[in-house]
Amino acid sequence: MTDVVDRPAGKGPRPAATFAATIPAENPEPAIDVEALGRQLLGKWADVRLQARELAARPELHKVEGLTHTDHRARVFGQLKYLVDNEAVHRAFPTELGGSDDHGGNIAGFEELVVADPSLQIKAGVQWGLFGSAVMHLGTAEHHAKWLPGIMNLEIPGCFAMTETGHGSDVASIATTATYDPATEEFVVNTPFRAAWKDYIGNAAIDGLGAVVFAQLVTHGVNHGVHAFYVDLRDPDTKEFLPGIGGEDDGIKGGLNGIDNGRLHFTNVRVPRTNLLNRYGNVDADGTYTSPIASPGRRFFTMLGTLVQGRVSLDGAAVAASKVALKAAIQYATERRQFNASSHTEEEVLLDYQRHQRRLFTRLAATYAASFAHEQLLQKFDDVFSGAHDTDADRQDLETLAAALKPLSTWHALDTLQECREACGGAGFLIENRFASLRADLDVYATFEGDNTVLLQLVAKRLLADYAKEFRNVDFGVLARYVVTQAAGAAVHRTGLRQVAQFMADTGSVQKAAIALRDEDSQRALLTDRVQTMVAEAGAALKGSKRLPQDKGAALFNRHQNELIDAAQAHAELLQWEAFTDALQTVEDPGTRKVLTWLRDLFGLSLIEKNLSWYLMNGRLSMQRARTVGGYINRLLEKIRPHALDLVDAFGYGDDHVRAAIATGAEKARQDEAREYFRTARASGQSPVDEKVLIARTAADRKG
Amino acid sequence: MTDVVDRPAGKGPRPAATFAATIPAENPEPAIDVEALGRQLLGKWADVRLQARELAARPELHKVEGLTHTDHRARVFGQLKYLVDNEAVHRAFPTELGGSDDHGGNIAGFEELVVADPSLQIKAGVQWGLFGSAVMHLGTAEHHAKWLPGIMNLEIPGCFAMTETGHGSDVASIATTATYDPATEEFVVNTPFRAAWKDYIGNAAIDGLGAVVFAQLVTHGVNHGVHAFYVDLRDPDTKEFLPGIGGEDDGIKGGLNGIDNGRLHFTNVRVPRTNLLNRYGNVDADGTYTSPIASPGRRFFTMLGTLVQGRVSLDGAAVAASKVALKAAIQYATERRQFNASSHTEEEVLLDYQRHQRRLFTRLAATYAASFAHEQLLQKFDDVFSGAHDTDADRQDLETLAAALKPLSTWHALDTLQECREACGGAGFLIENRFASLRADLDVYATFEGDNTVLLQLVAKRLLADYAKEFRNVDFGVLARYVVTQAAGAAVHRTGLRQVAQFMADTGSVQKAAIALRDEDSQRALLTDRVQTMVAEAGAALKGSKRLPQDKGAALFNRHQNELIDAAQAHAELLQWEAFTDALQTVEDPGTRKVLTWLRDLFGLSLIEKNLSWYLMNGRLSMQRARTVGGYINRLLEKIRPHALDLVDAFGYGDDHVRAAIATGAEKARQDEAREYFRTARASGQSPVDEKVLIARTAADRKG
Repeated sequence: MTDVVDRPAGKGPRPAATFAATIPAENPEPAIDVEALGRQLLGKWADVRLQARELAARPELHKVEGLTHTDHRARVFGQLKYLVDNEAVHRAFPTELGGSDDHGGNIAGFEELVVADPSLQIKAGVQWGLFGSAVMHLGTAEHHAKWLPGIMNLEIPGCFAMTETGHGSDVASIATTATYDPATEEFVVNTPFRAAWKDYIGNAAIDGLGAVVFAQLVTHGVNHGVHAFYVDLRDPDTKEFLPGIGGEDDGIKGGLNGIDNGRLHFTNVRVPRTNLLNRYGNVDADGTYTSPIASPGRRFFTMLGTLVQGRVSLDGAAVAASKVALKAAIQYATERRQFNASSHTEEEVLLDYQRHQRRLFTRLAATYAASFAHEQLLQKFDDVFSGAHDTDADRQDLETLAAALKPLSTWHALDTLQECREACGGAGFLIENRFASLRADLDVYATFEGDNTVLLQLVAKRLLADYAKEFRNVDFGVLARYVVTQAAGAAVHRTGLRQVAQFMADTGSVQKAAIALRDEDSQRALLTDRVQTMVAEAGAALKGSKRLPQDKGAALFNRHQNELIDAAQAHAELLQWEAFTDALQTVEDPGTRKVLTWLRDLFGLSLIEKNLSWYLMNGRLSMQRARTVGGYINRLLEKIRPHALDLVDAFGYGDDHVRAAIATGAEKARQDEAREYFRTARASGQSPVDEKVLIARTAADRKG
Repeated sequence: MTDVVDRPAGKGPRPAATFAATIPAENPEPAIDVEALGRQLLGKWADVRLQARELAARPELHKVEGLTHTDHRARVFGQLKYLVDNEAVHRAFPTELGGSDDHGGNIAGFEELVVADPSLQIKAGVQWGLFGSAVMHLGTAEHHAKWLPGIMNLEIPGCFAMTETGHGSDVASIATTATYDPATEEFVVNTPFRAAWKDYIGNAAIDGLGAVVFAQLVTHGVNHGVHAFYVDLRDPDTKEFLPGIGGEDDGIKGGLNGIDNGRLHFTNVRVPRTNLLNRYGNVDADGTYTSPIASPGRRFFTMLGTLVQGRVSLDGAAVAASKVALKAAIQYATERRQFNASSHTEEEVLLDYQRHQRRLFTRLAATYAASFAHEQLLQKFDDVFSGAHDTDADRQDLETLAAALKPLSTWHALDTLQECREACGGAGFLIENRFASLRADLDVYATFEGDNTVLLQLVAKRLLADYAKEFRNVDFGVLARYVVTQAAGAAVHRTGLRQVAQFMADTGSVQKAAIALRDEDSQRALLTDRVQTMVAEAGAALKGSKRLPQDKGAALFNRHQNELIDAAQAHAELLQWEAFTDALQTVEDPGTRKVLTWLRDLFGLSLIEKNLSWYLMNGRLSMQRARTVGGYINRLLEKIRPHALDLVDAFGYGDDHVRAAIATGAEKARQDEAREYFRTARASGQSPVDEKVLIARTAADRKG
């Protein structure tokens, strides 16, 4: 493995030379109040986060690299007990059972575990966030008393057995059945075929003694849809499957190998009638089904609603991982010198390169945006789950918000981890610097707890529904005009040249707003307008699709799938931008606010640059204006450069969290040593002369 | 781990329903001649490739997942011996020593090993492509006779010790010295400080007995620059380091853990004078230095020139990995049904979704482009290394071509592996389906053998140099006019509205060419124009930078670094597009040519879409025209859909190469079983009735 560029010395412009002109002054103004910014980033549940970080800093909880998956699993299972002993994982459970009914705090603390080991985070999530949470939210008092204590103290490691090999995102169609037998007052849980095996189930391969199994509830010949059943899986002593139950190990995965994911199947396994977690649907002894929610669709939606906390917590964990990665990569980039470290001059560090700044600062800005957006999501989650604001509308908003943010932040984390790893070159690939390890573990965050693409499609449908609601009583002609007029320049391509010329001259109203791209209102106008227009266009295109025969309607929808998903993403990005902008309002220190405003602008302009073709095609930005975006971004990068370390230090992660050899100052120490060596050699007069210098001298002598 | 979307059944447009309207006919016209296309893809060294694939299909060479890095290393070392025994790795070596002087064939065969295990590929590359190759190309007859036999038969596992902890891409500045001592006729190899330790060196941690060590050659007080020295590292019996030599294990990495990368340092280690690999520079017994190449810069460039084969082979290996991934993901997508597999109708498969097509087909198109471009690169490489065409200009062109293509193909492989993994959901994350494993192993391809970003910067410099050469005798005023006129619409933002309106009306010459985007000449014009204009603009901006003081010149260069790298990437993409287009000319079967033309159009239009804002900002495409790009891409996706399987089958990789459980037809078998189950149940009249159906019936009864 070698890492080399055969650049002939002194030929052509050097990839790097001293940028004295751009190197910032020692005491740049404005300055960031790192501590205050750090407090703001910690958010409402700062104390819980600090507590969790204190835990996550302990070596007992750290991932040990290079373990076999068997050993890693054993280690993480032990760590779960450690979490119990340290009272780290019971916050969401009822006070009367030793919890604290603190839903937001529970998620905040849970998220921070990712910096210790993502396997630990997710295995804890399986045990208490999915398995325990299902018993708590879908079960009733009797179930709580019976199982929650054992779940909380890990006497009953368990599974959340929902997904089947044949059904990932489409939970409503799972094929496992639980058929009521009034003769024995039992449910018969059965797996009818291979595609109905439960799959990818955490704790299923080894540790799970119990499970909440999702199955179609059938009684008196009627299928009442998906319900949850508590099923004992293994003998607590022998750890062998109980009769009728079988399974398989999912084996090694791309990451998260501290978790024993596996498959489960049930051959007419009988469980008592009372094992139905019956909060939203009950079967009497005689087999009569009743539910407090009449609509099967709404009942299903309600039962699955508790799953949202998984998405909320993945959003937060992804942000945390991005922060750790950026801290390491930016720290290193302020020390590392790529070229000519042996030359006589002081050389620029990696972070002085424009491209390096672009690679890291755009992701730093997006991380701040995602962090502030996550805090809003978490507060909304807490509002709903604490009961403070838990109307149907609140729950739907929460669902939509989580479905919008989780895809962006999880993809962002993968992208950031990868860019940081590449920005650190070969060193970034060494597992001791953790980028590759975290990336491997977080990979699946993009598809579990809701596939990112499917989630964005849900968001798109919500946007379409809202749009349709707004125009419910408007006929199609009006709608079409709305699209044209509301979407200002979208009309351009249907109109004449004179109007085009107007747009080019920045006389349109949107263009006016965009005169100063750094202006907050302009950014908002551009980002908002894009979402609205995309939704309106899709809405117009799909208008009437429901009146088509099903296959034609679906085909029509499919022909717009790509743009719908793009619209949802644009919406989610706007939410992040708004959250960042909201957060700016609460920054008191003027220096901090100034730098953060640059960072917010960088985020906003990066979004606009990414979608610049849309703004141009739709007449929202003139060619002149569009051509300024790249340059303005470059100027922002220069402004942010002196504050980069402060911005990552404000994340508040210490060496015990970052744990990257390259972020320890070792690189700087090595360079200092090298420089001192050359200095001494030169002073001693013992340095060899460069052949090139000799040649130059000879040439000069000949001339002279 | 769960993977779920809580979509209330029947609410809103369904994420998927039957797309009967878009499902292709059984026997779509045109048809692909899969075998002929396969032969074309195999290229000039088809026989070698087939031979190498036959080897790569053998279980002995396959990666075993889940091994500790220690066991994986041992396994791969054993596999290297297997390659020797099977005469797989000597093609590049001299015929008189048992090789076949076949440079192109050697690389072609080497690339294919990636499908067995990337660690095996890269470890073989270290041994024969770097270590052995350095002895062969930098050494002379005596060296060949002395060391090549042992290197070829693996009696001497060895290192290519170039990179240092403090110097990755900047080889010219490495700090290890080899100082000649005429008293003993020895070189003293010394590591002056920690930053000068050799690092990331394959075979260094465990297996390496010898090494080619790169060091500054100092004799008679003059430093003649970097030269290569053969140094014995370890006692062949005890495997202990020889006196004065020390090292460290680089430990676990993000991938490629079958290779024992490590660090090496030398404390005044003495080697005989004749251990200098002296083809390009020699030291006489009395310490006199001579070289057939007078210029130290050019000498350095020449010595490092052999490194290009590493880049060439990574380019090819990245293409091979992309092919394997796409075969697996597209096969699976033709079987997998995401929603409603239990419903009564025949359901669409994943590959019928527009977004899924976009995700996979755009990458399929880019893989074809990269594959054809690689074949051209390999032929150019063979021309140079066989001596058929090996002028300085040929070598420089080869360097530039490799530096352009390797970044694109290696990034593309990572992107494709990740998209394929996500497109397969949770199953994609299981190591049994290999995406995550290949991705982890190929990660470092983006930064080793030349960091991708640094390589693109080299390409940019070459483009700038060519541009400057063209205008050497032209004064700056002419140059500025060239930028304006040659770059047609780039002038738009400096001119009045009337001209803008003209552009909008598609009356400009470039616009005329772009009337039909599917037209080959239009695509070429747009892609070429962009490269030329970007280079011209950068050239104009940097004009005179060499006359500035060094720091100011470097700062100016740095302020354009981002756009220069973008220009280089645009150039590389154009090369890929041209290679794809060239390949179309040699397709004889009309059906194959038609489908491949769609695929080439998809590649071209995807590039244009990616950079659409540039075409708009610079007046190359009107808003009207730009708005057609997305829709035209969508139509291409529909056209390609029926041929997707043929297109991946033509890659020619069998089950033993793909080795992904999801690509075996298992998914289809599971679905057939499930469908049969439901069919039988319905026929028996024993299926439970859906509660929803009951509710609907009751409502109907009430009405009735």
